[in-house]
Amino acid sequence: MIDMLAMGQQILASQAFSVFLGTQLTAFNDEQVELHLPLRDELKQQNGFAHGGVLSYLADNALTFAGGAKLGPAVLTAEYKINYLRPAVGSKLIARASVIYAGKSTATCRCDVFCVSDDGVEKMCATAQGTIAKTA
Amino acid sequence: MIDMLAMGQQILASQAFSVFLGTQLTAFNDEQVELHLPLRDELKQQNGFAHGGVLSYLADNALTFAGGAKLGPAVLTAEYKINYLRPAVGSKLIARASVIYAGKSTATCRCDVFCVSDDGVEKMCATAQGTIAKTA
Amino acid sequence: MIDMLAMGQQILASQAFSVFLGTQLTAFNDEQVELHLPLRDELKQQNGFAHGGVLSYLADNALTFAGGAKLGPAVLTAEYKINYLRPAVGSKLIARASVIYAGKSTATCRCDVFCVSDDGVEKMCATAQGTIAKTA
Amino acid sequence: MIDMLAMGQQILASQAFSVFLGTQLTAFNDEQVELHLPLRDELKQQNGFAHGGVLSYLADNALTFAGGAKLGPAVLTAEYKINYLRPAVGSKLIARASVIYAGKSTATCRCDVFCVSDDGVEKMCATAQGTIAKTA
Repeated sequence: MIDMLAMGQQILASQAFSVFLGTQLTAFNDEQVELHLPLRDELKQQNGFAHGGVLSYLADNALTFAGGAKLGPAVLTAEYKINYLRPAVGSKLIARASVIYAGKSTATCRCDVFCVSDDGVEKMCATAQGTIAKTA
Repeated sequence: MIDMLAMGQQILASQAFSVFLGTQLTAFNDEQVELHLPLRDELKQQNGFAHGGVLSYLADNALTFAGGAKLGPAVLTAEYKINYLRPAVGSKLIARASVIYAGKSTATCRCDVFCVSDDGVEKMCATAQGTIAKTA
Repeated sequence: MIDMLAMGQQILASQAFSVFLGTQLTAFNDEQVELHLPLRDELKQQNGFAHGGVLSYLADNALTFAGGAKLGPAVLTAEYKINYLRPAVGSKLIARASVIYAGKSTATCRCDVFCVSDDGVEKMCATAQGTIAKTA
Repeated sequence: MIDMLAMGQQILASQAFSVFLGTQLTAFNDEQVELHLPLRDELKQQNGFAHGGVLSYLADNALTFAGGAKLGPAVLTAEYKINYLRPAVGSKLIARASVIYAGKSTATCRCDVFCVSDDGVEKMCATAQGTIAKTA
């Protein structure tokens, strides 16, 4: 039996950018993908919120992992769109992604990004939808 | 007379995340916004290409600056979509954004992201379209 | 007490294009918006499937109604994106939309479009996400 | 030599929905696709503007033709996003689409939609970006 989560964590660990930001993979299976990212100062913009680019990165990555859980590890994000809902404040970001529909070579996926306060209250701060495609 | 570029560079310098990644603003006016980002190892994914999240960050930020050049500095990206075109390799990324249409409180903007080889050849590697909104 | 559904049906009846296509509003409240569209030959493309433009129209309209249920009747769709999942065959289309997050002047909404076979089996054939904005 | 435009017009004529709305293909080549749609009452919404769904349909169709001009006739729109810029008034709509980047099996395309006044003045009223994919 394959330990999906361990495999996913290994892939994440091989992404220099994800290591640079400090992203953690906490769930990786057919049903759900979850990424965590502790929110330190380097990840913020001029108003003290998480930079939109950080939310985008996290959504993009979670979408890819969600598609990869269905289509296999050789996948990439072909495209996605993201709506920012509210300023992302707190001590952590969580991205939760899942597959809406998977064909043979592509999967349409969705991802909600939450910011989490020090006492654990989650608020959705962005939502994304996109296409993951097999590379081979 | 306002030095738009110097003002924009000051705003970029106040974004901790942009400083963390090493982004530079090289053009900032009504016609065009241009961001440069030297491509070092920390910005890559497992195959040695720039991470999609880096391209997204750069597009998002360039879109916001383009909208801000029209609407004023108090703006944010409300939403955008991005298509990845080819793997981003080389020594630098350049994002060029402009306004397609600006109303009173929002602007619809477009951004092309290029990867640049050591000898200066540019290839478009992503393209984005989104909405910038005034915050006040 | 306002009869929301009757009000919504009146708005739909005032859209010449919706009357032209034959769209019906079957649910209209804070939780859910549902549009039905019987699938006749005029709504198809060259392969006998519902034309993508019909799915887009239905998603766009359902998104607007979902946003309007929260923000009030004076709204429009500012933007949206749609992913087509599978060919839309059968005798009817159903679009179901809801609000993900509503601010003061905009709402981010989601819509799934289903095609329904003669014996009532639903299959999701498109999914959309977009921004509804107050016009005044 | 293939008469691209005649071939494209034949494809458009085989789309029942396009015939139903009255769409005309006026340019179809590697560089540019242009669709025209006379704006009659049946295509409007409650305020007398072209219904957003009509703009979406036109953009979707123009994107597909643009992709098809590069990838061949067996293509479909996989996904797209559209921003509405201003109310579409006048006597005609024009959609102009082109390919930004084409790979082996997909093309990323862009489309601007214009409304044209009785005396021929064009105003951009929507802009779209999307992915066209080969079906086989």
